[in-house]
Amino acid sequence: MSILVVGSVAFDNVTSPSGRAENILGGAATYFALAASYFTNVRVVAVVGEDFMPEHETVLKKRGIDTGGIERSKGKTFRWGGSYVDNLNEAKTDFTDLNVFENFHPQIPAAYKDSEFLFLANIHPTLQATVQRELSNVKLTGGDTMNYWIRSTNAELRDTLKLVNILLINDGEAKMLANESNLPRAAHKVLAMGPQALVIKHGEYGATIFFREGAFGIGTHPFRAPALPIEEVKDPTGAGDSFAGGFMGYIASQNAINREVIKRALFYGGVMGSFAVEQFGTGRLQSLTRGEIDARFQVFRELTHLE
Amino acid sequence: MSILVVGSVAFDNVTSPSGRAENILGGAATYFALAASYFTNVRVVAVVGEDFMPEHETVLKKRGIDTGGIERSKGKTFRWGGSYVDNLNEAKTDFTDLNVFENFHPQIPAAYKDSEFLFLANIHPTLQATVQRELSNVKLTGGDTMNYWIRSTNAELRDTLKLVNILLINDGEAKMLANESNLPRAAHKVLAMGPQALVIKHGEYGATIFFREGAFGIGTHPFRAPALPIEEVKDPTGAGDSFAGGFMGYIASQNAINREVIKRALFYGGVMGSFAVEQFGTGRLQSLTRGEIDARFQVFRELTHLE
Repeated sequence: MSILVVGSVAFDNVTSPSGRAENILGGAATYFALAASYFTNVRVVAVVGEDFMPEHETVLKKRGIDTGGIERSKGKTFRWGGSYVDNLNEAKTDFTDLNVFENFHPQIPAAYKDSEFLFLANIHPTLQATVQRELSNVKLTGGDTMNYWIRSTNAELRDTLKLVNILLINDGEAKMLANESNLPRAAHKVLAMGPQALVIKHGEYGATIFFREGAFGIGTHPFRAPALPIEEVKDPTGAGDSFAGGFMGYIASQNAINREVIKRALFYGGVMGSFAVEQFGTGRLQSLTRGEIDARFQVFRELTHLE
Repeated sequence: MSILVVGSVAFDNVTSPSGRAENILGGAATYFALAASYFTNVRVVAVVGEDFMPEHETVLKKRGIDTGGIERSKGKTFRWGGSYVDNLNEAKTDFTDLNVFENFHPQIPAAYKDSEFLFLANIHPTLQATVQRELSNVKLTGGDTMNYWIRSTNAELRDTLKLVNILLINDGEAKMLANESNLPRAAHKVLAMGPQALVIKHGEYGATIFFREGAFGIGTHPFRAPALPIEEVKDPTGAGDSFAGGFMGYIASQNAINREVIKRALFYGGVMGSFAVEQFGTGRLQSLTRGEIDARFQVFRELTHLE
């Protein structure tokens, strides 16, 4: 089934111990869409500027992604620069030029209104809520957020969380949102804010999903997918969005939402995140095959599997 | 089969967000011995002072631990004070009074010379090497170390690593020892120093074991055991030594060292570490049953298990 992602398309400058890349296609919606495209049909709602060229759109179209919802505005596309110096898990932001993204008001094309799966990438929580309310056919909404929104638009974010079925954030964001340093306790506090499930991403250590009582009718035991120890992390940018793309994309490709589907989705999220970091930008996500994805799924599975 | 542990017995003062405890029995050898005692016979070589009372020895004896190698010296037992303020993964040391531990020269009782399994807890690497060379029947030596020895006795540590079959350290120690920030690359560098296998403990995220080419004849794919998300971490002291006790104790209880045994051992390590932190000091490790241990083993297994 189709999944709609609303978020940023950007051009990034990235510096890591492996080197430097400039003006490469990035943005949360881009990483999410590419990762999800290996599992299901993907539609993108985003805004770009006049510097977004046909070759950039081709990156998405080649993966069968519906780009009809990418709005063109006068001006430049969102640009971000970041460096990973000592810590590959956290970027130091060198600059953020919002450009056309500053006045982004997501327009949902009529042809997208039947979307059954929705992912609200990391944008202003009020915009997330507006989009969610416009889509009456949605049966599962995933969402992301970040420290900035937790701090500066907390009330708005709390409203949005009531509309999100599965929130995907990292350890630090979960602890900040819950104002609680113990992770399982933080998870329960976040679940009390609305989501039925919370995926906490641990970077190189994998991810854990926590469930609210009664969520999806599948019990409340948490589940964890490990991540692969990766020798060559070239560019961690987009790993979290690629994780979300694999996770939501796999769920959207299945006929039912049950515990086993969600468990496998968590593994596929980790798989897509691990591929994303192997090259600068979206390079690796453009060139994968489903065979490569399923082979790594097996490696992940065996990483923690007892006979 | 019997496992011999050489290391510290101590009295600890611990402050954590859950409260404070004073003069509680601790030390690496104590935690290790208690954890391992649920799997196999354990012998302890350590030194204590005149403040080590029969009731302290009873804690070990009740678990069937052979305390014949605990030497009594004039003076006080090693005392350590630590606080876990914002970070449950790392203690702030309030004080270290080595006392009788300062002149610890491990004496191996004649009755211990047939030990087939040996764990060198965190002591001076030259003492570790001396003990290892004295025990000619040992078929598997596990070892620990810490930042202090990596920095101040690096050459001695390098010699000791050639005698250690399985080194168990945490992420930060592995990166420091290898002078390499990427974990899998750090692991390979440490393995090149001597050990056949390296267990890297990730705290609340579990542990990963890396193998050197040809080690134990079981392939080089790493294996990871997840940890349980724990809501109530009362006192993280001794979690790493309890992990080592579960890991080494389980291996010593088996007839063969193969991949499946080592994988299960990694899970049992995580299980014992997770119990250790539930109460201050060794309280929880004194009162467990094998049934409780195996029940948690199943929970850990299911935490990442796909159908």
